[in-house]
Amino acid sequence: MDKLRVSLLGSTGMVGQKMVRLLSSHPFIELAKVSASPNKVGKKYKEAVKWIEEGEIPEAAQDLTVVSTSPEDHRDVDVVLSALPNELAEDVELKLVREGITVVSNSSPFRMDPEIPLINPEINWEHLRLLETQRQKRGWKGLMVKNPNCTAAILSMPLKPLLKYGLNKLVITTLQAVSGAGYNGLPFMSIGNNVIPYIKGEEDKIPKESGKMLGELQGDKIAYVKLDAVVTATRVPVKVGHMGVVTALFNSPVNAEEVRKELMNFGAFPQDRNLPTAPKHPIRVLEGEDRPQPEIDVKAEGGMAVSVGRIRQEGDSIRFVVLGDNLVRGAAGITILTLEVMRELGYI
Amino acid sequence: MDKLRVSLLGSTGMVGQKMVRLLSSHPFIELAKVSASPNKVGKKYKEAVKWIEEGEIPEAAQDLTVVSTSPEDHRDVDVVLSALPNELAEDVELKLVREGITVVSNSSPFRMDPEIPLINPEINWEHLRLLETQRQKRGWKGLMVKNPNCTAAILSMPLKPLLKYGLNKLVITTLQAVSGAGYNGLPFMSIGNNVIPYIKGEEDKIPKESGKMLGELQGDKIAYVKLDAVVTATRVPVKVGHMGVVTALFNSPVNAEEVRKELMNFGAFPQDRNLPTAPKHPIRVLEGEDRPQPEIDVKAEGGMAVSVGRIRQEGDSIRFVVLGDNLVRGAAGITILTLEVMRELGYI
Amino acid sequence: MDKLRVSLLGSTGMVGQKMVRLLSSHPFIELAKVSASPNKVGKKYKEAVKWIEEGEIPEAAQDLTVVSTSPEDHRDVDVVLSALPNELAEDVELKLVREGITVVSNSSPFRMDPEIPLINPEINWEHLRLLETQRQKRGWKGLMVKNPNCTAAILSMPLKPLLKYGLNKLVITTLQAVSGAGYNGLPFMSIGNNVIPYIKGEEDKIPKESGKMLGELQGDKIAYVKLDAVVTATRVPVKVGHMGVVTALFNSPVNAEEVRKELMNFGAFPQDRNLPTAPKHPIRVLEGEDRPQPEIDVKAEGGMAVSVGRIRQEGDSIRFVVLGDNLVRGAAGITILTLEVMRELGYI
Amino acid sequence: MDKLRVSLLGSTGMVGQKMVRLLSSHPFIELAKVSASPNKVGKKYKEAVKWIEEGEIPEAAQDLTVVSTSPEDHRDVDVVLSALPNELAEDVELKLVREGITVVSNSSPFRMDPEIPLINPEINWEHLRLLETQRQKRGWKGLMVKNPNCTAAILSMPLKPLLKYGLNKLVITTLQAVSGAGYNGLPFMSIGNNVIPYIKGEEDKIPKESGKMLGELQGDKIAYVKLDAVVTATRVPVKVGHMGVVTALFNSPVNAEEVRKELMNFGAFPQDRNLPTAPKHPIRVLEGEDRPQPEIDVKAEGGMAVSVGRIRQEGDSIRFVVLGDNLVRGAAGITILTLEVMRELGYI
Repeated sequence: MDKLRVSLLGSTGMVGQKMVRLLSSHPFIELAKVSASPNKVGKKYKEAVKWIEEGEIPEAAQDLTVVSTSPEDHRDVDVVLSALPNELAEDVELKLVREGITVVSNSSPFRMDPEIPLINPEINWEHLRLLETQRQKRGWKGLMVKNPNCTAAILSMPLKPLLKYGLNKLVITTLQAVSGAGYNGLPFMSIGNNVIPYIKGEEDKIPKESGKMLGELQGDKIAYVKLDAVVTATRVPVKVGHMGVVTALFNSPVNAEEVRKELMNFGAFPQDRNLPTAPKHPIRVLEGEDRPQPEIDVKAEGGMAVSVGRIRQEGDSIRFVVLGDNLVRGAAGITILTLEVMRELGYI
Repeated sequence: MDKLRVSLLGSTGMVGQKMVRLLSSHPFIELAKVSASPNKVGKKYKEAVKWIEEGEIPEAAQDLTVVSTSPEDHRDVDVVLSALPNELAEDVELKLVREGITVVSNSSPFRMDPEIPLINPEINWEHLRLLETQRQKRGWKGLMVKNPNCTAAILSMPLKPLLKYGLNKLVITTLQAVSGAGYNGLPFMSIGNNVIPYIKGEEDKIPKESGKMLGELQGDKIAYVKLDAVVTATRVPVKVGHMGVVTALFNSPVNAEEVRKELMNFGAFPQDRNLPTAPKHPIRVLEGEDRPQPEIDVKAEGGMAVSVGRIRQEGDSIRFVVLGDNLVRGAAGITILTLEVMRELGYI
Repeated sequence: MDKLRVSLLGSTGMVGQKMVRLLSSHPFIELAKVSASPNKVGKKYKEAVKWIEEGEIPEAAQDLTVVSTSPEDHRDVDVVLSALPNELAEDVELKLVREGITVVSNSSPFRMDPEIPLINPEINWEHLRLLETQRQKRGWKGLMVKNPNCTAAILSMPLKPLLKYGLNKLVITTLQAVSGAGYNGLPFMSIGNNVIPYIKGEEDKIPKESGKMLGELQGDKIAYVKLDAVVTATRVPVKVGHMGVVTALFNSPVNAEEVRKELMNFGAFPQDRNLPTAPKHPIRVLEGEDRPQPEIDVKAEGGMAVSVGRIRQEGDSIRFVVLGDNLVRGAAGITILTLEVMRELGYI
Repeated sequence: MDKLRVSLLGSTGMVGQKMVRLLSSHPFIELAKVSASPNKVGKKYKEAVKWIEEGEIPEAAQDLTVVSTSPEDHRDVDVVLSALPNELAEDVELKLVREGITVVSNSSPFRMDPEIPLINPEINWEHLRLLETQRQKRGWKGLMVKNPNCTAAILSMPLKPLLKYGLNKLVITTLQAVSGAGYNGLPFMSIGNNVIPYIKGEEDKIPKESGKMLGELQGDKIAYVKLDAVVTATRVPVKVGHMGVVTALFNSPVNAEEVRKELMNFGAFPQDRNLPTAPKHPIRVLEGEDRPQPEIDVKAEGGMAVSVGRIRQEGDSIRFVVLGDNLVRGAAGITILTLEVMRELGYI
């Protein structure tokens, strides 16, 4: 089997570096090109990057020459993965897709576009069918696939199996890691020994993106789920790992033990096909009363599983705490897994 | 006016030291005696304490000789303040009260006792009237007054003015500081760069103690308010300042602007009488969308005011974030203010 | 006595805010004007600043209108204090001085200029006499006085009384707080849970600036002390407080007890005249074997005293640990104290 | 080749857990038994341990039954590894050795005993020959081998290749991680946002233990190197990674470039024999001016390599910064590597 050759936009950023590391040992995806900002173009990757990932820069990436984001620099790859900053992504990605290049992207523009699939693989891999509609209606020569906001990626996991119980209202408080704001996103002086109870834009994205992902594909449209969710997003002095404290109100009592089993047994196409980046158990259910914790649980299954603990029932409500790796399940890993699914389904 | 002479149990602990500092400049309370564990008895305070409060040990306290917790060591003071650890407090405090000594205490035993007032001064100073019942029914020669759990002290403040709108349900997530577990409560290795989503005992205490404090004194009994509250208590790597993210569901829509005004104008007996430890505004309402924050807001009004921000309405719910100093409003300061109220009302 | 009217450049930065707070209760210096970057000019201070100092913005400053750095905006004050970033300071300060305005500045340009006094008041207040030379030789209409780098300000304090013993060589490791790099200087992701063993420019400045400050004024020149010092400057995840671990090698053994006394008794003109910002004891000598510590000692005497501990002798070497508040003794406070000395000596 | 069967004392502690994880994938050492404190004896390992290492408890260890420290519980293993707390180690280890069991131990008692080898494998593997003397003179039936203090293990690495240049004096400041004090060693309240410039016992151990390890084995004795070293040991709020800032004074100038090469090329018996836990390059030399850093460099070669940066020469001195993983090179890994060497040399 030939390897998929990919190029990576935003390869020197924090999420980009994570992808470089994850791809370095991938069985069938080969990192063929790396792209970064104009002042780095032409340099070798090892000279262009200020490496902050654990371990050394993977050998295969060290001597890649940094290219631009222009389509001409990406014609000879199978797919472009994008870890671009949101403010740059819109123009660059659109231009690539129009020129016939397929893009799988982590950035926020177009996420809510009704003809662009927003994929969290275990939840809505079937939405990739939307690509056919996209091709017909948009007249793009390439395909565009998006991944969700990091917190939505994590929170939507346990919501999926709960949907069928008649979810009525969600009250969510998030405790999000500093890396979610980017490597330079928050100064030590502002977040060290502190909590900032607000993250711009985040509180809206979570229910909106989750509502799209959890929707059913009906014909050539997604029937969005309207989540009556209130979210308060806070930033805590933790490096990696977004936590959500979730109170789910249902129309009638739901059994906590049943929920526990549903979550533990949750799995989908990526697990069925045993895809290389798929976690065996996308949702780990923890019994310890003081779990999940970022320092202990965030790296479970290489950061691709989310951990759920403290499942409790009171009357019509179910409460739990969920934790996930915002850089892997929430960003670099989800993109790679999406690409694996696309290939398995023949979109690439 | 003669000064009130007090002795202080648990004087070398973190809350004890805070009291020593607060009392050092008090206009009419004099720290006459300090008590600590048996191995420190007989030493000078400055030799017995490992001082961690800011600044030097107050001069008046430095050379006090540490005494035991036995009643004979506290006969010649007007009141005993207690910052004892919970596990020691029950026996010691009971013995003192039986021997005719009045105790105002921060420790947890007896807090839910129906004949012992649990005082957060601005909220339920009137509950001190219960002391008359206590005297009659218990036959103690002294009086016993309790202060609430530190988180309950902070959260109950904004709940008081909201009660009248017909509070239906509360969903609360707390982000609590490490000092709430005591100076040695949590190792750096466990809470540094981490969140622990569980605090033993805390989730029950908050609604129970708040329900008692918010209740009305009817005859010689408090009619507890039954709060339908679910609390998830988390520990975050912050030294001082407990935060609560509160979603309050009402029976009908409540106007956020009105709530804002109610909170801003909140005040009671301690403010009316201008007591020395009373904050001018017990509740600060902040407009900045990213406030309150422990590093900026916790010391407002010397730590005696709580700060409320992000007040928002959606349908029948009001949401907000509240922050308070767990060592001052939540412990040392609330005890001193309680004593000030007791004296103003003639109980001492 | 008329108050000195000052204006403050860089008033919205971290050091600027510290000066605003310190000046708000000053007995004879009045903050008359605040200046900040062009996009803030014309706004009220309270709207221009993102206040991070403890407590509220001082009332007297809240409604000051932000002015530019141009000389015409500062003609009616007695002195301009500068907390400008280094890269902006050179041009702005020079223009002001040429136009007849006296500037006392924290910024780095001109610090090593032989005709500009570099003042750490207790150490070299006498260097202010250099202003007469400055006036003659430079032909400036105003005067320019500089304060040292924050670490040099702290380290030079205990070196002064040691000089006379025949200092041969200094080996210094610093553990510096994050605030020394400015509020936005270091991202949480880079310094949280980390040590960075390098601070650009710092290792040279410390011996050079100290050598100038410790020099004797001979006629109209300072005879710089050539310190044979090697410095390794590290950044640690601490918000405020620069620590230096100092090994001083002498030509012959020096008695530790004698050093202890010299340091404890150290004082100079600011102490003699009891100037308002002068600490009573510029050097606190601590006996506890695990002191000084930033969390306990940095605020001693309002941040104007440095703390020295662990004084030990081995053969010809004396070792100790010194700690100081990099924002007060190292920046905002040293500038105000310098101004107090200048006024006392009649330079203003 | 048969596997070596080992039992592990102190298996539930932080270092013990690290050993359990490292041994779980070892090619020829099998963890056969785990021992812990009396109240855990009889439980399964997975029930006795509060697992804090990354990932799940290794399967092979989960169901091991915890045994006591008594010799009868360790008769059927080839070696006992000890990660016991210092205060318990002396009696337990002595008893085991007397009863014929070979012990390789991390604990501090007996480290300076002239007949007990203190092994940092790359530095002094040849000292294992001392075991023959030990056997003759002590009359123990088993053998006792010690590993050094974690900081001495790290610092001694770069000192070894420097010795030959005529080391005259060492001035060392350490910045040590909190894990060095044990998992419960330091409360968050004391070390968070702080530096504690003192670690009990540490400053003496470093030169003493290094002097023993760096000594030459002459006949049946080690000729200790007398290091004229002054050490100031500080604790910084970092979880893992001890750093040393080293100034080495020589009798004559030493070329920095030559030192760099010596360090880079350093290697010994463990590298020659390609032992499984041996790092390829025991000393990594880093070029970046702001390296090494705990967050980036501590896990190099699985934590078994130390990282050296900022090598500089001034006159007769060479300065550098060294960093190592205190839990792997400084504790769990060094013990396992020592055992590998012992087996390779036929001592087991």
